[in-house]
Amino acid sequence: MDAFDFDRYDRIRPIRWTGEALELLDQRTLPFEVKHLRYEDSDGVAEAIRQLVVRGAPAIGIAAAWGVVLAARRVEAADGAQAAVALEPAMQRLNAARPTAVNLAWALARMRRALQGAGADWRGVLEREAQAIAEEDLAANRRMGALGAALIEPGSGVLTHCNTGSLATAGFGTALGVIRAGVAQGRIERVYAGETRPWLQGARLTVWELQQDGIAPVLIADAAASHLMKTGAVRWVIVGADRICANGDTANKIGTYQLAIAARHHGVRFMVVAPSSTVDMHTPDGDAIHIEERDAAELFSLGGVRTAAERVGAWNPVFDVTPHTLIDAIVTERGVIERPDEAAMRAAFGG
Amino acid sequence: MDAFDFDRYDRIRPIRWTGEALELLDQRTLPFEVKHLRYEDSDGVAEAIRQLVVRGAPAIGIAAAWGVVLAARRVEAADGAQAAVALEPAMQRLNAARPTAVNLAWALARMRRALQGAGADWRGVLEREAQAIAEEDLAANRRMGALGAALIEPGSGVLTHCNTGSLATAGFGTALGVIRAGVAQGRIERVYAGETRPWLQGARLTVWELQQDGIAPVLIADAAASHLMKTGAVRWVIVGADRICANGDTANKIGTYQLAIAARHHGVRFMVVAPSSTVDMHTPDGDAIHIEERDAAELFSLGGVRTAAERVGAWNPVFDVTPHTLIDAIVTERGVIERPDEAAMRAAFGG
Repeated sequence: MDAFDFDRYDRIRPIRWTGEALELLDQRTLPFEVKHLRYEDSDGVAEAIRQLVVRGAPAIGIAAAWGVVLAARRVEAADGAQAAVALEPAMQRLNAARPTAVNLAWALARMRRALQGAGADWRGVLEREAQAIAEEDLAANRRMGALGAALIEPGSGVLTHCNTGSLATAGFGTALGVIRAGVAQGRIERVYAGETRPWLQGARLTVWELQQDGIAPVLIADAAASHLMKTGAVRWVIVGADRICANGDTANKIGTYQLAIAARHHGVRFMVVAPSSTVDMHTPDGDAIHIEERDAAELFSLGGVRTAAERVGAWNPVFDVTPHTLIDAIVTERGVIERPDEAAMRAAFGG
Repeated sequence: MDAFDFDRYDRIRPIRWTGEALELLDQRTLPFEVKHLRYEDSDGVAEAIRQLVVRGAPAIGIAAAWGVVLAARRVEAADGAQAAVALEPAMQRLNAARPTAVNLAWALARMRRALQGAGADWRGVLEREAQAIAEEDLAANRRMGALGAALIEPGSGVLTHCNTGSLATAGFGTALGVIRAGVAQGRIERVYAGETRPWLQGARLTVWELQQDGIAPVLIADAAASHLMKTGAVRWVIVGADRICANGDTANKIGTYQLAIAARHHGVRFMVVAPSSTVDMHTPDGDAIHIEERDAAELFSLGGVRTAAERVGAWNPVFDVTPHTLIDAIVTERGVIERPDEAAMRAAFGG
């Protein structure tokens, strides 16, 4: 992917460290209002993760790492070992902000490990570790873009779900990075984006993000995906992940599982794109994943306008699990796993 | 279904003939504003059908029949034969209001047939025919409620899509009639309703309509249906139809096809409920159905609030086709067709 012009095709950064504070692009009001919120303490960052100011599995991991850096300012410790003890409560609160994406726990574990053996400069160690997590994520995304795009036949239409782009990562994106690379290489001719109810990450975020790069996606209702596949317009469904289990089962945004069933029914291929930080070899399969259920009110209104009858009950799981048997390829920065299963995952990720 | 208390469980009537004018319950603003609009000419009724003031395949057929009665007031003719010629332009405009539901053309064909042999009282003939269409629809729905509910095992959870209730018919509903009957008989313990983007017939109409009857449905995002099925909470998906072809292929609200694929994947059963006026033995299969595509703007906003980025393209087909191979039962007022195919359909409906 030597020809890819990263500066042209990837302009958005949802997470900025100023050296003093963490600035997050508020994803709740995009694309209608583009504003950054400033955080100077870790509990504020935890709340921002909970409230979806920042969202996307890799991005919440990175934000949490910076949250630890902010927490470090309020703690006295002579070395890393002392700091680890002192910071643990703040890290627990960050970890509890959202349950499904493993990247959050993964980033916090990296910060804990960085403290091991750190001396008096343990705050500097944490800051460099957070920076490394962000930089490695961006590099992983660019690598996955090349690996994933290479799987796509020239002239293809693809369908994506939720937002997996620069907004969901340190930059470039996971599934959306593959799509960026595929468009730049002329392999992808048309990009369909599901609107992704209830939070409309597709309609609000993916459409806007692709437009910044000059890519014009076609928006569809989530319920139109199977009808679209039947027309032959889609060769690949390309999605991100919040947690990939030891057998390849993958948790991702609600609706992903439905797309995988429909893809298999129509002979459309199904690609999961996520950095290795999303792989959780300690969770054996999808049944062991805690699926976050959010407030039913997310289904009742939009932008302050009520969309459902009053006093109605609702069920609002925001993730689902796609079994590995419905996945044609898992792409991480380490390579492509075709037809993932426990053996293939173990070969790639150990454990 | 002797024990069913129709008066208690079915209070809504979307279409009222006053003897002077047609009053339609405006379904665009439900459930937030309950208001009736009054129509005194057939072109107004055609526009009301186009604008979704009245929607649901049986309901638009009935509204169109009353539209012909209104058109008859503006036409001079000595007998039915003359009237048929004079009314044809108005009937064509009514017929063109929406393309997918066959009930519209079916009701107009009945009105044309009624004129054959009618004498000077041709206006009275038309009015009685429109009344008969409405009354037969209500009777068909009550019969289907009994037939469909009998298929459902006691203690079941069911999932429905769009709105197929009293709001979509002369009363009682098709799929929602089966659900009403099933709840009343204790066969259905829980009703899940998909919100049905983009127009939110589920969230706005089905939830409200069931609440009027004291039934508390659980609202889900359309994309959550497969995850719901995986939990085992749903034994039947029950939907209506806009056109049932000679081989049993069924056009219905966008998203129905996706539910049928998911149902088969999970061993959940799939029931289509529609009066025989929805059966179109002249359309051989689903490939021959004209699928209406509505304005992409339906995907961009909700209640006047923008939900998608600006300048985005969208694809907004509002129906899809479920192949007969994914349907376990078609219920009409004439009986139940299990595992529908061309032979079974021909046995039931001739042609």
